[in-house]
Amino acid sequence: VLVPTEEIAARTAAFQGRLRQEGIEAALLVEASDLVYLTGTVQNAHLIVPAEGEPLLLVRRDLERARTESPVRLVEPLASLRALPGCLTRAAGPVGRLGLELDVLPAAAYLRYARLWPGVELVDVAPALLTVRSRKSDWEVARIRAAGAQVMGAHRAAREALRPGLTDLDLQITLEEHLRRSGHQGPMRFRGLNGEMFFGSVLTGPDAAVPAYSETPLGGPGPSPAVGRGPRGAAFNVGMAMSVDLCGARDGYLSDATRTLWQERLDEPLATALRVCERILTELEALLAPGVPASALYERGLELAAEAGFGDGFMGHGPGRVRFVGHGLGLEINEPPFLAPGHDEPLQAGNVVAVEPKLVFPGVGAVGRENTYLVRAVGGPENLTPDL
Amino acid sequence: VLVPTEEIAARTAAFQGRLRQEGIEAALLVEASDLVYLTGTVQNAHLIVPAEGEPLLLVRRDLERARTESPVRLVEPLASLRALPGCLTRAAGPVGRLGLELDVLPAAAYLRYARLWPGVELVDVAPALLTVRSRKSDWEVARIRAAGAQVMGAHRAAREALRPGLTDLDLQITLEEHLRRSGHQGPMRFRGLNGEMFFGSVLTGPDAAVPAYSETPLGGPGPSPAVGRGPRGAAFNVGMAMSVDLCGARDGYLSDATRTLWQERLDEPLATALRVCERILTELEALLAPGVPASALYERGLELAAEAGFGDGFMGHGPGRVRFVGHGLGLEINEPPFLAPGHDEPLQAGNVVAVEPKLVFPGVGAVGRENTYLVRAVGGPENLTPDL
Repeated sequence: VLVPTEEIAARTAAFQGRLRQEGIEAALLVEASDLVYLTGTVQNAHLIVPAEGEPLLLVRRDLERARTESPVRLVEPLASLRALPGCLTRAAGPVGRLGLELDVLPAAAYLRYARLWPGVELVDVAPALLTVRSRKSDWEVARIRAAGAQVMGAHRAAREALRPGLTDLDLQITLEEHLRRSGHQGPMRFRGLNGEMFFGSVLTGPDAAVPAYSETPLGGPGPSPAVGRGPRGAAFNVGMAMSVDLCGARDGYLSDATRTLWQERLDEPLATALRVCERILTELEALLAPGVPASALYERGLELAAEAGFGDGFMGHGPGRVRFVGHGLGLEINEPPFLAPGHDEPLQAGNVVAVEPKLVFPGVGAVGRENTYLVRAVGGPENLTPDL
Repeated sequence: VLVPTEEIAARTAAFQGRLRQEGIEAALLVEASDLVYLTGTVQNAHLIVPAEGEPLLLVRRDLERARTESPVRLVEPLASLRALPGCLTRAAGPVGRLGLELDVLPAAAYLRYARLWPGVELVDVAPALLTVRSRKSDWEVARIRAAGAQVMGAHRAAREALRPGLTDLDLQITLEEHLRRSGHQGPMRFRGLNGEMFFGSVLTGPDAAVPAYSETPLGGPGPSPAVGRGPRGAAFNVGMAMSVDLCGARDGYLSDATRTLWQERLDEPLATALRVCERILTELEALLAPGVPASALYERGLELAAEAGFGDGFMGHGPGRVRFVGHGLGLEINEPPFLAPGHDEPLQAGNVVAVEPKLVFPGVGAVGRENTYLVRAVGGPENLTPDL
């Protein structure tokens, strides 16, 4: 067992509170990170969470592992999807509104469930669950802190490895291995279709300014158009910026940090832009407090960039720009809160967010700085990715 | 441009033929590997493929990259989903049946499309597209062959690195780095929800017999219950089996091969079981011919395992067993044809399949052998993963 029983109980109770608030009698969950969050294990399984009472974990594979690894008390085999309606009634009684993860559940599965429950209203329960997930417990923060130390070890290794002639791809591979030797779990989770997640991206020179399909301020050309992001092997040299954006990962929990490296000198406009990013990050730290609207950090970041004359390159350039300056993270890299326009919900104590002001100059390069922070009620945010 | 214009034209024509056959006037595609297949690039984009006429690629990000990397002629920006119906009519005329990737499209997106096209029947077009994708061109086979040489280089490195006391996790990390230094692209694609894909799994001792949620004959405990598969660091020793299952990846295309390593001696029942797997693989090679039902390979493999007294451990043990002996692969690791019960469609020239007879002994270990093959009309299958 990885996740303590009390931890699972508290998460479940918080989620059930949201279900009752939204008038949803039960949730039926299948996505890996949602299962890990509420059961402590990833299995090929359906989890039924009634608004009141005991959750029921129905496992296709592997039942024994689920029983061994999960503190959930009711763990049963599921032979066929046709058994689901009976199980739902048993766990939750009559259900008028059933919550599903509509943001990730494949349409074919949704249509199958719609046939299984003809009279039932199927609603999206992902926002409720992700809101609960966005307030991390001390137990979770301890894991993210450990993932933070892990990723900062890799950043130290990056500083030591940098030399003229080194390619961004070579440095990335060196850091992937460093992370793995430091206990990095390997596979990570990026919620949503095409949410492809790797160790991060190391990019130098103009390649760092190449936009990609992914929801990231820096893209990179990738080793091939079939991959489409990350480094393809540009060589670093004196005067250039090497952007090192990496994720640590332990026990499912992620950390995210970016450092911009250079040697001897950093050419303009990159040098000035990097100082601007550092100043933006410092200013935004002061806004990481309960009650501040998440969107305020984006607006303030954009304002500061524009005041410095770099508004055009803030978080990407032109159509390649992304509309956020940071994002929550935990079991997935893209969790709420999103520090983005329109996200006016207030930050809460227990939020863990990566804040990443970056400036992009097409044909030249990109710079930025990113830390993962814990929002706290008192004492200001804790930086979970301090330099080693 | 990675993918030649003629290649994209031939793929599109084959897919359009299937659309006409199934009475689907147009397909609307968004999944990464489907986009790479039909456009040669991965972007945040919608691809409209009319049953007749010119495909239209509508790009949110990045338009310039799409125009540079794709041979598709009509590439336009997409400002809003509300513009989609007009674009569809322009590309395909009036549409009564619209094909979507229902196996991967999130339910929320499906419901949004249903609102955009209230009178239109939305049908699953993934089977048609995946059938087209299952017949690889010479151009594609050349890439898989290169990925095959890449993965076999890692297998040679595995033989050289093996020594008593080495853990499966250590060996896995060494081979991940070896693959990356040999041009492995990094991220890979596993179709479907929770389709988490890494470099493969290196497993030794009883850990190799631990089942996992993933659709793989061997699972492994993983570094944590939050990851749930792969090695956690079991030490290899004389008499034990080290199962090395690895994927190569180049230009989006995958290869898949397994070797079972041991030193000095392999303890029973593993030694006999490994010879049985090798014999099964040789026998199944002879069935890799156009016209043979895909399911026949599974049935023959199970029969041979049972005759040898190992039917219980074939492709996993008990509820941990998977019901296939092989799978197609290409841009994704889990493509048709599936060498599985019920899949009675005949193999075709151009199919590329990984055949992987494996035997699992709970508490003891697991053995097996896997190659990636090209099904050919004459001369028998080509092994794309020959030992180096």
